[in-house]
Amino acid sequence: MKDLDMYIPTYDDVIAAHDRIRPYIHRTPVLTSSYLDDLIGAQLFFKCENFQKAGAFKVRGASNAVFGLSDAEAAKGVCTHSSGNHALSLSYAAGRRGIPCHVVMPRTAPDAKKAAVRGYGGIITECEPSTTSREEVFAQVQARTGGDFVHPYNDPRVVAGQGTCSREFMEQTDGLDMMVAPIGGGGMISGTCLTLSHIAPEVQIIASEPEQADDAYRSFKAGHIIADDAPVTIADGLKVPLKDLTWHFVSNHVTDIFTASEQEIIAAMKLTWERMKIVMEPSCAVPLATIIKNREFFKGKRVGVIITGGNVDLDKLPWI
Amino acid sequence: MKDLDMYIPTYDDVIAAHDRIRPYIHRTPVLTSSYLDDLIGAQLFFKCENFQKAGAFKVRGASNAVFGLSDAEAAKGVCTHSSGNHALSLSYAAGRRGIPCHVVMPRTAPDAKKAAVRGYGGIITECEPSTTSREEVFAQVQARTGGDFVHPYNDPRVVAGQGTCSREFMEQTDGLDMMVAPIGGGGMISGTCLTLSHIAPEVQIIASEPEQADDAYRSFKAGHIIADDAPVTIADGLKVPLKDLTWHFVSNHVTDIFTASEQEIIAAMKLTWERMKIVMEPSCAVPLATIIKNREFFKGKRVGVIITGGNVDLDKLPWI
Repeated sequence: MKDLDMYIPTYDDVIAAHDRIRPYIHRTPVLTSSYLDDLIGAQLFFKCENFQKAGAFKVRGASNAVFGLSDAEAAKGVCTHSSGNHALSLSYAAGRRGIPCHVVMPRTAPDAKKAAVRGYGGIITECEPSTTSREEVFAQVQARTGGDFVHPYNDPRVVAGQGTCSREFMEQTDGLDMMVAPIGGGGMISGTCLTLSHIAPEVQIIASEPEQADDAYRSFKAGHIIADDAPVTIADGLKVPLKDLTWHFVSNHVTDIFTASEQEIIAAMKLTWERMKIVMEPSCAVPLATIIKNREFFKGKRVGVIITGGNVDLDKLPWI
Repeated sequence: MKDLDMYIPTYDDVIAAHDRIRPYIHRTPVLTSSYLDDLIGAQLFFKCENFQKAGAFKVRGASNAVFGLSDAEAAKGVCTHSSGNHALSLSYAAGRRGIPCHVVMPRTAPDAKKAAVRGYGGIITECEPSTTSREEVFAQVQARTGGDFVHPYNDPRVVAGQGTCSREFMEQTDGLDMMVAPIGGGGMISGTCLTLSHIAPEVQIIASEPEQADDAYRSFKAGHIIADDAPVTIADGLKVPLKDLTWHFVSNHVTDIFTASEQEIIAAMKLTWERMKIVMEPSCAVPLATIIKNREFFKGKRVGVIITGGNVDLDKLPWI
């Protein structure tokens, strides 16, 4: 494997991140469900990052980046491209520090998402819904503002921030055999790998992915990054490909990657709403969908599941 | 006020109930929302009984009744009439004790509710959707089985059980100025009055009710029970009238009753789902709807809100 051009964060960075972001994030609760335990024949623990500030775990990494800037750096603000939870989270974190946050979003993104970003104080510049346009517009915004670019996941500060989630999770449970989280760009999984490989290397790390956006699965089997162009899945947080930093953690520490179909994801999402009474995004249902599908693998184990976010359009539920 | 023919439970009964039911219920978490705090200008604390066993606070009272029976009494099982959370909760509690639970439900109740009762082991006898038929069929079931009748709210064991909720709530918060809960038959409010009048008499108790089923509000203003026949509201847990035991607590301890329109209830429900990421019933949205409507009254206060249950039909959401 070739050397990375990027700094690889260590567990000390996770500890520093946790101290830095603690005033701005929730220590989210861990919920259990005897119904789901009986269904799987395992003990499941759900870390509810849907209750997190800005509605998603991404606020951990975003806050770590924002509050790690020097005053001189911070004065120019931050910028990113994202149409999802990272845009919200970075806007929230920048707002808490009182610095500008510029977000490049596709013109076609839902108005509700744009309104939510603006609600947290983010300044939106629209681009066309293509990679070329996004990169071009983003380069202009960054050149104009001089803001610090906080990538949604391929950034050591972001990965270290996401690593604080499984650190709390291990403190809140009395030991786990496995940890399951969804995989898109790999930010949460990389933070999980970083933390668990240091404090609980015996815990198996399972990544869950939609069948219709299974580039991480295919990358994992092939031994190198395979990036898909615009996969289509209801789990809209999981469409982006791995990048070099997240691939480093995935290829070195992930035990396996399981996939689930769209129907299995929707069924697991509805089941969680019905039985656990929590609102969560389709992306968060992918772990439970893969656990239900592979229940023999999880049988008798203590399994941690990361519910990554709760920002869903309540007017368009996939089962209605 | 005339004397009650019924035993009036005391705070000792609440303590005994808590010890009795602790193995069968969750100590549900208390959540907060800085968004809602800013909206109201108050500090709000939400006791999440939607995460409770069987999905509602009613399991507290039902479990207290079931586990308070002698072995001889328990052998004949329990029975009730309810098409809602009490049916689920009594079935759950009876199942945990391993005794039969007979429930009289209207033939027209949703199949999903019947399936849920059966899922907890309840045995359903159907009646026509009228009070006459319900009472007739229920008398037959009780005569045939000899089961102990556990009324959904007009029962000292049930009121004492519901009183455990605000006991936990006060332990989980650092003092409250007010406690707000929905009012239908008055079981939860009565339990709240019972507990708070003993351990925190300074806390004002506000009951919240749909405008379209405002019989408790009119009773409270008139000074005697006014029962409506079949009020129509989306808050289907709040259609039933006060009875003598719950009237005793409401008339003696409630500070005021506030009401909200159907549209205000639906808006508050959707807002809670969106911002707090929890699934809750329309009935539970009535307190927040009345708080939003009367925000001057709550301004600057520490306000406890009881989220009473989360059993909602996800295929029929009122805003879609």
